[in-house]
Amino acid sequence: MIMTEPLPATGQPAVLTIAGTDSSGGAGIQADLKTFTAHGCYGASVVTALTAQNTTGVQGVHPIPPDFIQQQIRSVVEDVDIRGIKTGMLFDTDVIHAIVESLSAHYRTSIPSLVVDPVCVSTSGHTLLQPDAIDSMVKELFPLATLITPNKSEAELILSLNETATPIHGLSDMLSAVKKLLECGPQAVLLKGGHVTTTLNDVESVAAINADVKIVRGGLLDENMEILQVAEQDLSQLPLVVDVLYDGTSTTLFVRPRIDSTSTHGTGCTLSAAIVCELVRGHDLVEAVRLATQYTHLGIETAEKIGSGHGPLNHLHPITERLIPRPTTSVPHPFIRTLIQSNATIWKAYVQHDFVVQLAKGTLDRACFLHFIRQDYLYLKYYARVYGLLIAKSTTFSAIEDATKIIMNVIQEVVNHKAFCAQWGISEQELEATPESPATTAYGAYMMDTGLRGDASALLMAIAACLLGYGEVGLWLKKEAAKPDTWVVLEGNPYVKWIESYAGEDYQNAVKTGVALLENMAVQDPPTPARFAEWCNIWGRCTALEKGFWDMAMNLL
Amino acid sequence: MIMTEPLPATGQPAVLTIAGTDSSGGAGIQADLKTFTAHGCYGASVVTALTAQNTTGVQGVHPIPPDFIQQQIRSVVEDVDIRGIKTGMLFDTDVIHAIVESLSAHYRTSIPSLVVDPVCVSTSGHTLLQPDAIDSMVKELFPLATLITPNKSEAELILSLNETATPIHGLSDMLSAVKKLLECGPQAVLLKGGHVTTTLNDVESVAAINADVKIVRGGLLDENMEILQVAEQDLSQLPLVVDVLYDGTSTTLFVRPRIDSTSTHGTGCTLSAAIVCELVRGHDLVEAVRLATQYTHLGIETAEKIGSGHGPLNHLHPITERLIPRPTTSVPHPFIRTLIQSNATIWKAYVQHDFVVQLAKGTLDRACFLHFIRQDYLYLKYYARVYGLLIAKSTTFSAIEDATKIIMNVIQEVVNHKAFCAQWGISEQELEATPESPATTAYGAYMMDTGLRGDASALLMAIAACLLGYGEVGLWLKKEAAKPDTWVVLEGNPYVKWIESYAGEDYQNAVKTGVALLENMAVQDPPTPARFAEWCNIWGRCTALEKGFWDMAMNLL
Repeated sequence: MIMTEPLPATGQPAVLTIAGTDSSGGAGIQADLKTFTAHGCYGASVVTALTAQNTTGVQGVHPIPPDFIQQQIRSVVEDVDIRGIKTGMLFDTDVIHAIVESLSAHYRTSIPSLVVDPVCVSTSGHTLLQPDAIDSMVKELFPLATLITPNKSEAELILSLNETATPIHGLSDMLSAVKKLLECGPQAVLLKGGHVTTTLNDVESVAAINADVKIVRGGLLDENMEILQVAEQDLSQLPLVVDVLYDGTSTTLFVRPRIDSTSTHGTGCTLSAAIVCELVRGHDLVEAVRLATQYTHLGIETAEKIGSGHGPLNHLHPITERLIPRPTTSVPHPFIRTLIQSNATIWKAYVQHDFVVQLAKGTLDRACFLHFIRQDYLYLKYYARVYGLLIAKSTTFSAIEDATKIIMNVIQEVVNHKAFCAQWGISEQELEATPESPATTAYGAYMMDTGLRGDASALLMAIAACLLGYGEVGLWLKKEAAKPDTWVVLEGNPYVKWIESYAGEDYQNAVKTGVALLENMAVQDPPTPARFAEWCNIWGRCTALEKGFWDMAMNLL
Repeated sequence: MIMTEPLPATGQPAVLTIAGTDSSGGAGIQADLKTFTAHGCYGASVVTALTAQNTTGVQGVHPIPPDFIQQQIRSVVEDVDIRGIKTGMLFDTDVIHAIVESLSAHYRTSIPSLVVDPVCVSTSGHTLLQPDAIDSMVKELFPLATLITPNKSEAELILSLNETATPIHGLSDMLSAVKKLLECGPQAVLLKGGHVTTTLNDVESVAAINADVKIVRGGLLDENMEILQVAEQDLSQLPLVVDVLYDGTSTTLFVRPRIDSTSTHGTGCTLSAAIVCELVRGHDLVEAVRLATQYTHLGIETAEKIGSGHGPLNHLHPITERLIPRPTTSVPHPFIRTLIQSNATIWKAYVQHDFVVQLAKGTLDRACFLHFIRQDYLYLKYYARVYGLLIAKSTTFSAIEDATKIIMNVIQEVVNHKAFCAQWGISEQELEATPESPATTAYGAYMMDTGLRGDASALLMAIAACLLGYGEVGLWLKKEAAKPDTWVVLEGNPYVKWIESYAGEDYQNAVKTGVALLENMAVQDPPTPARFAEWCNIWGRCTALEKGFWDMAMNLL
């Protein structure tokens, strides 16, 4: 059995959403869990209410008893090390009491980062928080909050509790509203401007009056980007969305162009969930909000059409598929395994070539073998030069040293090769004077061309077929020779030295080093589809050229 | 306002889970939604029951009324184009009736791929399906199923309905059990072998007797992989897990090494969810099961420690973060924007260099300018050669043509350059004889070195600082000159031709082409962190070398 210990939980910080569900998957805990996943966080969830809902509206709500909400919270917080929490739909006063009681009981004064999205009414107009519960949310929950994230109407509703109605019409209304909202108890307020009309003029006027207001130009171009200004439409003339963040000391405006899109279902849930993720990933509040607004904005812009009404955002835009899995105990070489599988037929035709079979039986025609070792001598010169090119492309002394050692090995191999050829009656002069066969030129020149054209990784891929293939041949023959009634003939086989040299420890150690190097290359910089296709192409070409090299020898007959 | 239409829903097929929740996030709809997200699918969910649950067990269950389950199903299926469905915890007979009724009513005979995970008892021993409901599940739900995915005890429970107990002890018991399970009505059966002890001998015996049994060696090495066999532990001697798939015609065994891990909470949910994803992504059943078992297996092996009991799988292992967002209407050049932001201070020091400012005012010392244009002549030779190297690294005729045109432009620019120099009293002989300044050598040789060392993308990055920077200077001066009370002096400025040439249409068109080319490069093969760091490094070096080029000219004084 393969023993594996779970890794320490550092890579995927755990975050919790306490909210309602959205059956159609675009909002509520579903949007939160998708957002958590897209941010590399581990998501837990406590359900406060179920909704039967889709892109056209909310068709039904099924509230959950407060004591079962408390039971869910206990199950999560007593077992999982939660680093951040967000709340969404809370439904009514009893639910808010229950949540505040459970969180306070467990965390006492050291509650993790808590982002409260004060959801009151759905985009489609459905009540998601009973009107009499707003007071509890403000008095009981807000004082625990790191941040609250109301939109215009929620902010107006909250502020109407304390005084006469405070309508929010423009950016300056927003700036006064955030100060009043902060007095409700949270550590910071993000007032979302999606329903407020703003222009760049408004932003510049505000900035001119308030020197301490910081502006984050999310979707707008920075200075010294005239070259992009020309190539893009002039966003400065378009209507803007401005979110206002206030933490009691400084005010930050997050400015981006307004997008006219119907894919806005779950925007608020997504934004608050993304803020929690960025906070637990170690960003400060301003940066967390900047990244989260960018994530949400792109989610709207890259949305696909789902449902007939206001469709969901695209939660998946910042992730891509990993082609080659990380090495694990059970599959320590996923990259080379995938590579061999990508080209299994030609690989097999190469490593179990008739040349090899006849050589192992001792029946290989002498002329074929002599032709092969002459051409192999010429090939080794390319092979050494390719490593020279690899040195020229290296960035570390350790890589330079590794490649240099291999060239020294090749030079030693050539000494042996010449001695070996001498036994077969071929002198060094004769070796040097051998005309290069097209198969040799094709293979050698292809390696050099690949190395000149691509980077070091392409060069390593070009080398791999030779290094690994001869290793495979050596091990295969060794394994076959060890079987009872084997077809391999070692005793009296004129080619036994050849077999022994590739099955031997020295060569196999070089293979192991090469395997580890290639595997590590795919771990350090996991190949994208385009890059992996390029690597497979080089690997495929070289295995075919290796096969062609032995075909050449056999075709003499 | 930026008008965006949602993209057609082709990239992220929608899938639905009908199951219970797991507050701690490792199983139930939470595991399903994470799995859907990791597979690039859009997840919707219908909740059949809530659980207060964590890695140590199930602390409470809150069932949902069947009519609200039906309402959730209607909300989803009537609005979202669901391509595949999985069911998990169904709780009781009424829930099963309700689900079967709703799905049959909506889909009639053309129900999407339906994978039924016949969840009966949690790993921790909690009842998740009332015993009297098993019969309904078999009689009503199984006939709709594309696939059912019981484990050993669920299979035993289901089969005990029809006859006397059928214990499943080994692989041959599994092979007879799948045939009996298929008679319950589903189109195929995947009997999971996690709780059955199996060895490679068992697999080989079965294969020897049943010629039609196909073996998928998930975690085991294929043939012609001796080089990996040596480098890895010999998995063939380890206990195995074998899942058996039967579709009425053929039997497939999915073989992988058994892992001893405590991170197995939610394994069944995850596997069935992953199978649905692979089916809707277009794979046939065997391939879908192969990919899904691999996903689940790696999820266990790469799990981090979460909770104190049986922790969840790692659902995120096949995804990586995308560094550069896709271009959108509001941000059409995310790559170049990020690049400039990565190095804003040096970029600004380059494009708003004192050399440029004095040149635009007409106050630049003549000696400085003459030194600059002499060195620029030498630099242009490097610049043309770099494009030659780019041609050598190109893979398409269109790339070859584009680079060739640029070399022709440089040659034309050199003609103008010589004429321009002649006006300042510098002959061609003098230009050619100019000793190369270290700043020129540093920049030119760095571009050549980068191009020789890296691939075409590295070379394009090395070219970018010059191409884009002079474009930025030209546009900046043009913009400043157009302002009332501008500091730029065009009339009588001895350097006016220089300004006009970089602000002019020809040069700006080349910049636009370059911007599009670079942006497209990041779209075609989105850079990994390592690659992006390399690109930023080259860009940073070249902007600094550009600044150094003008420093050199000014340092004459």
